[in-house]
Amino acid sequence: MTDLRMSHDEQQARELDLTQRVLRSFDTCADPRLRELMRAVVSHLHGLIRDVRLTEEEWAAGIRFLTEVGRVSDDRRQEFILLSDVLGASMQTIGVNNRAVGDATEATVFGPFFLEGSPHVGQGGSIASGAQGEPCLVEGRVTNTAGEPVPNARIEVWEADDDGLYDLQYNDGRVAARGHLFTDHDGNYRLWAITPTPYPIPHDGPVGAMLAATGRSPMRAAHLHFMVTADECRTLVTHIFVQGDALLEADTVFGVKESLVREFERQPASTPIPDGSTVDVPWTKVRFDIVLGPSEVRGS
Amino acid sequence: MTDLRMSHDEQQARELDLTQRVLRSFDTCADPRLRELMRAVVSHLHGLIRDVRLTEEEWAAGIRFLTEVGRVSDDRRQEFILLSDVLGASMQTIGVNNRAVGDATEATVFGPFFLEGSPHVGQGGSIASGAQGEPCLVEGRVTNTAGEPVPNARIEVWEADDDGLYDLQYNDGRVAARGHLFTDHDGNYRLWAITPTPYPIPHDGPVGAMLAATGRSPMRAAHLHFMVTADECRTLVTHIFVQGDALLEADTVFGVKESLVREFERQPASTPIPDGSTVDVPWTKVRFDIVLGPSEVRGS
Repeated sequence: MTDLRMSHDEQQARELDLTQRVLRSFDTCADPRLRELMRAVVSHLHGLIRDVRLTEEEWAAGIRFLTEVGRVSDDRRQEFILLSDVLGASMQTIGVNNRAVGDATEATVFGPFFLEGSPHVGQGGSIASGAQGEPCLVEGRVTNTAGEPVPNARIEVWEADDDGLYDLQYNDGRVAARGHLFTDHDGNYRLWAITPTPYPIPHDGPVGAMLAATGRSPMRAAHLHFMVTADECRTLVTHIFVQGDALLEADTVFGVKESLVREFERQPASTPIPDGSTVDVPWTKVRFDIVLGPSEVRGS
Repeated sequence: MTDLRMSHDEQQARELDLTQRVLRSFDTCADPRLRELMRAVVSHLHGLIRDVRLTEEEWAAGIRFLTEVGRVSDDRRQEFILLSDVLGASMQTIGVNNRAVGDATEATVFGPFFLEGSPHVGQGGSIASGAQGEPCLVEGRVTNTAGEPVPNARIEVWEADDDGLYDLQYNDGRVAARGHLFTDHDGNYRLWAITPTPYPIPHDGPVGAMLAATGRSPMRAAHLHFMVTADECRTLVTHIFVQGDALLEADTVFGVKESLVREFERQPASTPIPDGSTVDVPWTKVRFDIVLGPSEVRGS
């Protein structure tokens, strides 16, 4: 009864023609890089819709999902960064921009929990500020890819407490488990933190619902965040991970790199610490030597 | 001084390896369609980042843009739909799902301004409800692709007023320039609307800023929205456009299809209308015959 003829070729031609018209709409863009970016967004977005033969219901579900991601994002919570993280888009961006250079330390995700203006802690000081957790002595040396020490490098360290929460995630204005210090004239640094433990990303929002729907875990491997900046060096944003952590293979933001896994040596209570004092609880010790790439090296 | 050697191949291998790891993380997804969708999203998202060598600043600008799109979206404003529209993603989805069937009327964008529960206007009634604009008589017949009349088809019509605003965009709860009626036993319908005029999409938000940054106009070609539903027929969401409108080639949501352009015949004031009465202002008349595809035909 009904004429259902419509060649696959004709349908495909109509779809590709629409994409071309949208691409041409950016011919007017005066900024060549913005033009390139918008065209690439359009090409991939249209390619996605065509590849999966996206239904109108699925399109509407996508709009609802993004709307919900927007609704739960505010000054304290960045659900779009979380979404980028769990889709591996953050790590892919980092990979593109942190081309391996000599033996420079590898980068990993920045995450949503960094804060400008962290407390300054001196050499050997503690960033804990009351955050609960097992004490952890972190020490190492910062050098450049020529093997030279980097004095006065600014090292920012931040982490979750033993309940798996960053200070930001409490609603009481506390600043804890974050701080910064500077390397000495030989590039050395030493600070007390807390031994990192695994925790879930905030998963009570739409990103958590997506992970649940797809059978994925919201857990991150235990880690300690670092950001290291120094003159003439490429800024390094990275973590160290805990050797033996069962989640190393299943980090939900794909942040683990083998080169960033460190042994956190367990020390019984009352083991003397390097400056001769002792602590009265068990603690851990980790060494993290850092190699910074030269500042002129960006993407590949 | 510095060892900058890093082969292009090795960099590429690392990038593709990350994408593969993210794709594998969805192996656990029990719903095969959701798994397919998430994998396609990841493939295109990673492809985009690699293709343009996305910088970290550009990534952050993208996060800020999406956050802003979320911030301005609420019950009355859907900036994500607007974004999908101006990127042609809405039209591409419609194209994928409304495969041409015989002479079925073509579909176009739904837009963000449809409301459930519009007023019922009888045959020959008016949807204006006080909306300012030139009167426009719309009439036609609904048939299926076998050429048979479709009685009792529900026709929803909605449009902007002469100021380019839908009732929803006023903050006074008005319902105007929208309504529905049903075809008679021969599939005929007739209603009074207002002659459509070109208007900009809401461009005071981030989508408007993106259009401005890329040199694109926010204007839509003048149009009248239709949604037609009937038993055993594929639901049709479409517009008719105004022959001679200078914006037909530059509609910012790529909604125009040649087959949807109609002559709006100008009638001087006091020209008799078909039921024998007259109106005392100039008006227009347009005929829109509608052919509905069979309900079983969806994507291609």
